[in-house]
Amino acid sequence: MEVDIGNALDGALGLTETDLETLDESVATAHERIERGRRDRDHGYAALALPETVDTTAIRETARAARERAVGDGELDAVVTVGIGGSALGAVTLTDALAAGDTAAFALDNVDPAWVDRRLAEVDLSRTVVNVVSRSGTTAETLANFLVVREAMADAGVDWTDHTVVTTGDSGNLAAAAETHDLPRLAVPEGVPGRFSALSAVGLLVPALVGVDVDAVVAGGARAADSLAPSLFDCPAYAYGATAYALAERGAAVNAVLPYAESLERYAEWFAQLWAESLGKDGRGQTPARALGVTDQHSQLQLYRAGPADKLVTLVRVADGPDRPIPATDLDGLSYLADGSLRELLDAELRATEASLAAAGRENVRIQLERADAAAVGELLYASEAACVLFGELADVATFTQPAVEWGKAAARGLLGEPTDESEQVREKRELIVD
Amino acid sequence: MEVDIGNALDGALGLTETDLETLDESVATAHERIERGRRDRDHGYAALALPETVDTTAIRETARAARERAVGDGELDAVVTVGIGGSALGAVTLTDALAAGDTAAFALDNVDPAWVDRRLAEVDLSRTVVNVVSRSGTTAETLANFLVVREAMADAGVDWTDHTVVTTGDSGNLAAAAETHDLPRLAVPEGVPGRFSALSAVGLLVPALVGVDVDAVVAGGARAADSLAPSLFDCPAYAYGATAYALAERGAAVNAVLPYAESLERYAEWFAQLWAESLGKDGRGQTPARALGVTDQHSQLQLYRAGPADKLVTLVRVADGPDRPIPATDLDGLSYLADGSLRELLDAELRATEASLAAAGRENVRIQLERADAAAVGELLYASEAACVLFGELADVATFTQPAVEWGKAAARGLLGEPTDESEQVREKRELIVD
Repeated sequence: MEVDIGNALDGALGLTETDLETLDESVATAHERIERGRRDRDHGYAALALPETVDTTAIRETARAARERAVGDGELDAVVTVGIGGSALGAVTLTDALAAGDTAAFALDNVDPAWVDRRLAEVDLSRTVVNVVSRSGTTAETLANFLVVREAMADAGVDWTDHTVVTTGDSGNLAAAAETHDLPRLAVPEGVPGRFSALSAVGLLVPALVGVDVDAVVAGGARAADSLAPSLFDCPAYAYGATAYALAERGAAVNAVLPYAESLERYAEWFAQLWAESLGKDGRGQTPARALGVTDQHSQLQLYRAGPADKLVTLVRVADGPDRPIPATDLDGLSYLADGSLRELLDAELRATEASLAAAGRENVRIQLERADAAAVGELLYASEAACVLFGELADVATFTQPAVEWGKAAARGLLGEPTDESEQVREKRELIVD
Repeated sequence: MEVDIGNALDGALGLTETDLETLDESVATAHERIERGRRDRDHGYAALALPETVDTTAIRETARAARERAVGDGELDAVVTVGIGGSALGAVTLTDALAAGDTAAFALDNVDPAWVDRRLAEVDLSRTVVNVVSRSGTTAETLANFLVVREAMADAGVDWTDHTVVTTGDSGNLAAAAETHDLPRLAVPEGVPGRFSALSAVGLLVPALVGVDVDAVVAGGARAADSLAPSLFDCPAYAYGATAYALAERGAAVNAVLPYAESLERYAEWFAQLWAESLGKDGRGQTPARALGVTDQHSQLQLYRAGPADKLVTLVRVADGPDRPIPATDLDGLSYLADGSLRELLDAELRATEASLAAAGRENVRIQLERADAAAVGELLYASEAACVLFGELADVATFTQPAVEWGKAAARGLLGEPTDESEQVREKRELIVD
C-alpha cells in the first residue's frame, strides 16, 4: 500500500510540505503513545494489536463447527450477520471485498420490517448460519432481529440452535443463551470498540464461513502494523492520518472517500463509521462522505471541484486486477475507446478526477493497493484505523469512546418501555409542520 | 408529504422563525422566477413542468414494445440501465423503491471490469432488456459498457437489437444506432438536466418495464407541483429548501440525509447528486452525506450530535407500511421489546435520533411520507427538486449547469486517445508518495 499526498499540498487550504515537517514532531510523540498503548493493550489501542492477538485458529474452528452443525457436509446457502454498526460493518466489508463462491453473506443491520421479511425469504434457512453479534447482548435492533430470525426458523421447521453462532461479551443475554443452548461462541475482544473490530472474531468469522482466507487478511494487517514509524514520511497510514488532520485544521470539514472499485464500496461505509464515531467529539471531527468511483464522479465532482474549499477527497486506486477489453465499434466518435479496456477507462477517470481537483486547488490524496486481495484489504483496514488513531491523538479527542450514541439508545428504550429522562425529552419535540 | 422544520430553529446555528419570515420575501420572488421558468419551459425549470409534459403513454408503449421484442409473452429476467449519474439514478431510485415481482432491475453505472462481468453473468441475457441512456451518445463509461453488453449478447447467441432500447438526444451515436437498427427509442427531454430527469422518459422507462405504476409516480409529482406556493410556510418543498439554505448560510456545510426505510436508500444517493451537482458552484454549495436509518445512526450519530455544528440532518420518515411483531422472548432485559414491532422500534429510533440531536442543539428536519408508495415517491422526488431549485435561486447559483464535470471528461478522453490540454495537466501530477 502506498499513499500519495502530493495533491494535498499547496492547494486552496494552503497546506505546505514545511507544515507537515513541523507537524511530524507531533506525529513522533503520538506514535510513542500509540506504541505504548498497543504494547500495553490499553483500551482502544488494543485494536492495533489485533494482528498479534487475534486467534484465527479459533475463528476457523468455530466456522467449521458452525458449518457442520448447520449443513453437515452440504453447501451453505447464506451466512447472515445479525448486528448493527461496528458489529456488522467489518464482516460485510471483508465479505463484499473478498468472498467468492455461491454462499451469500449479508447483514441484517436494520429493522425495516418489509426489508427484513424480504431478506429472510431470499435464503434457505435450513442451509444458513446466523452470527448474532452484540458485545452487551442488549442492542435493541440486534436482539429484535435475532428474535425474528428464531421465529422464522421455527416457522420453517428449522432448529435455530443448529444454525446460530453468537459473538458477544463475557456475560449478558447472548452469553447466557449460548450457555443454555450450547451454541458455538466467540468473544468480542476486550478493549476493542466495535468500529475497530474488523480484524477480530467480530469481523472475521463470517468471512471464514464463506471461504475468505482470514489468515491472509490478518497478515495484511500485520504488514501495516509493522510499517508504523515515528515519521509520517516513513509510514503510509500516518501520512494519510496526518495529512487529513492538517487539512481538517485548515478547514477540510469533509472527507469524501471514493474507492475506484466496486468490491471496496463497503470500505467507504466502514471508513465512514470509523472516522465519524472516533473523531466526532467536543465540537471537532471531520465528516466522512462516502462515494464510489467512477460512478459518483458524475454526481459529486462538480461540488468537489467548484463548491466550497472545505474538503479532502480520498481516492482509493487498485493498480491491478481483472480486465475486460472494450470491443471494437462501428459507432462514430468513439475512436478514443478503441484498443482500450474497462480498467484503462476506470483508471483514466481516476487520474482525470485527481487532476481536475488539483487544477482547481482542491486537495486530494491517493491510497493505492497493488491488488484488492485479502492481504491488501487487511492492510487497508488496519492502516485506516492507525490513521484514525493518529488523527485522534493530534486532535486530542477521545478516539475510542462514543458517548453521544448512548443518549439515543436510552431514549429509544424509554419510548418502547418505561419512560426515561431522555424519552420525556423526545415527547416534548418542537414542531413546525408544513404540509 | 409534510415537512417539520421545528428542530431546525433556535439550535447551534441560531436560525429563528423570524429569520425565516424575513427570508420568505425572497422565497416569494424566487417562486415567481420558478413559476415563470416552469411556464416558459426555460432550461432546467422545464424539469419542474415534467408532470404536465411527460408522455407516460409513450413510455408505457415503448416498454411494452421492448418487452415484446425481447421475450414475447415470456417473463423478463432483468432490465439493465446502461448509463451513469443522472442517466441512471432516477430509474434505479424508482425501481428500488417501488418494483415488486421477480424481474431484476439495476444499472451498469460503473466500469469496474470484474463487477461488470459478474453483473452480466447474473442475468439471462436472452430474457433481458437493456436501456442505453446518454443524451449526447458519447459518455465514455456508458458507451464502453454498451459495447461490452453487445459483445456479451453476441457471445450468448442473443441478437442485441432485439434486447436494446435507447434513450438519447435527437442526434449522436445512439440516435444513429437506433435509426440503423430500428431500435425502440425514447427522447431525453430538452431543457432537463440528467439529475432532474427522474420523472421523464429517462427515469420512467425501466420502472414501467418492471411493473411500477409510472402514472401514479407522475401523479405524485403533479401533487408536489400543485403545492408550490409563494411562501415557505405554505409549501413543504420550499419549507425544506429555504430552511436548508438558511442553515447553509449560517454554517451548515453538510446535509446528512437519512431515510428510515431500506426502500429509500437510493433516494439518498439520488438526492446527493441533485444537491451536489446543482448547488456546488462558485465556491458555494452544501455537501450531501448519504446515509440510512436506523443503520447509520449507529455509525454517524456520535459525529452529528457531538462533532462540529456544521450540519443539517434530514430524516425521511415513512409513517405507515408493512410491519412485523417482535416475538416474545425468554431472554432477560428485553422486556421493553415485548409486545412491540419492528416498525415501532424503527420509529422509536428515528424519534430518539431527532431528540438526541435537538437536545444538543443540532439542527434536523423531518420529511414525512404517509406511505412509501408510487405517488408518495414521485411527490418526494419532485419536492426535492423544487427545494433544490429554490436553494439555487436564493444562493444565486446556476442550478442547472455542471461545468466542472466537463474538465474531467475531457481529461479522461485525452488520456485514452489524442492528448488534450487537460490530459497534459494530468501527466504533470505532483507526487509525494509514502510507501
